[in-house]
Amino acid sequence: MSGQFVVVEGLEGAGKSTVLSVIEEYLIKKICSVMKTREPGGTALAEEIRSLLLKHDANEVIVPEAELLLMYASRVQHIELKIKPALQQGQWVLCDRFALSSFAYQGGGRNLSMSTLQQVHDAVVQGFSPNLTFYLDIDPLLGLERAKRRGELDRIEQEKVDFFIRAREVYLEHAHSDPTVILINAEQSMEKVANDVCQQLDKVIL
Amino acid sequence: MSGQFVVVEGLEGAGKSTVLSVIEEYLIKKICSVMKTREPGGTALAEEIRSLLLKHDANEVIVPEAELLLMYASRVQHIELKIKPALQQGQWVLCDRFALSSFAYQGGGRNLSMSTLQQVHDAVVQGFSPNLTFYLDIDPLLGLERAKRRGELDRIEQEKVDFFIRAREVYLEHAHSDPTVILINAEQSMEKVANDVCQQLDKVIL
Ligand SMILES: Nc1ncnc2c1ncn2[C@@H]1O[C@H](COP(=O)(O)OP(=O)(O)O)[C@@H](O)[C@H]1O
Ligand SMILES: Nc1ncnc2c1ncn2[C@@H]1O[C@H](COP(=O)(O)OP(=O)(O)O)[C@@H](O)[C@H]1O
Ligand SMILES: [Mg+2]
Ligand SMILES: [Mg+2]
Repeated sequence: MSGQFVVVEGLEGAGKSTVLSVIEEYLIKKICSVMKTREPGGTALAEEIRSLLLKHDANEVIVPEAELLLMYASRVQHIELKIKPALQQGQWVLCDRFALSSFAYQGGGRNLSMSTLQQVHDAVVQGFSPNLTFYLDIDPLLGLERAKRRGELDRIEQEKVDFFIRAREVYLEHAHSDPTVILINAEQSMEKVANDVCQQLDKVIL
Repeated sequence: MSGQFVVVEGLEGAGKSTVLSVIEEYLIKKICSVMKTREPGGTALAEEIRSLLLKHDANEVIVPEAELLLMYASRVQHIELKIKPALQQGQWVLCDRFALSSFAYQGGGRNLSMSTLQQVHDAVVQGFSPNLTFYLDIDPLLGLERAKRRGELDRIEQEKVDFFIRAREVYLEHAHSDPTVILINAEQSMEKVANDVCQQLDKVIL
């Protein structure tokens, strides 16, 4: 089977990075090597944009629309220079966050209008989208607890819990309406989460 | 009269920076101080984005859509944090390049579709626009000659002449159809250019 584009989504501390490694191992065992990548980031320029986005600057707020455009600038580099070329070579691509994060964080979290978002998305991403997205659903407070234990929080992780409650609502809407978005209960033990994910993956690779 | 937003546009070496200083001096003499600024840039974050845009990186091309989004990300910061607040205080704002540069360079130069451009523009800039734009029209080769004499060329200044010929076409279309865009023959001596500009300014300030 030719390469698929698989995305893992969810709030801070939901377990995305952990699940990404689980999927990677599973795919290596079952079929082939994968290219693991992340957003924002994935190319040198996209990683530079990522650090602009995540650093704290007490002297200058980032306007929500500018945040959205920076996210999409890094996404365009990532899609055109890294993701599409890998898929065209038949590789599987595993990505930590993708466009759904923008809908959840900039749309839900920042309250940007969904039409602004959709307009920017359509203008530059056009029809490109993941074959499969795992959305790791978690209570924002539990996720932030886990993330805090991991280390210092970045500019976005420092948002108030309301921000993440709104983001979760957008995630859930997509999980309920988009058949390519699979909801995983991320409040379970990692063993159970990994099991749920691999079971769903089997449906695609078998 | 309350503050106006005045933009100077044109190809490399057309004389924008020089004319900006002419206008500044003229306005100071005739009415009041002005805030002089430039694009891409104008805030700390916008200037960081500017340096991503203008530096050469032999290892990674910038995808045209990503270039457009970076331009608009810096523009949004600039508009919301610097230009609008100054105008609201009654200040005049003088800007070296603005959105018309994106239509000329990313639209004309890079051949991005005008509908993509308009979609991104409308999504984030909405109705905001300059009160007056001076477009300094010049043959691209003559402009590049002048720019070369000024020093080393950045990533965009290094484009082939065809790029600037296409950009000039877009500038001219706007100068012919938009009554707020005033065409100035920039191939004249700077004295004559300055004279033409100040004569047009008089119509606005008197
Ligand atoms: N299901 C889980 N149960 C308990 N702890 C978890 C679970 N999933 C992840 N963790 C832990 O929570 C922290 C955040 O997980 P991580 O994979 O980095 O989340 P994310 O990438 O979504 O921010 C890590 O310390 C991880 O070991
Ligand atoms: N009308 C003109 N005639 C001759 N030289 C000019 C004229 N306008 C500008 N220059 C010179 O050309 C160079 C580029 O001008 P500048 O104002 O920096 O252009 P821009 O900002 O549009 O790139 C400068 O060295 C400037 O002195
Ligand atoms: Mg992670
Ligand atoms: Mg200049």
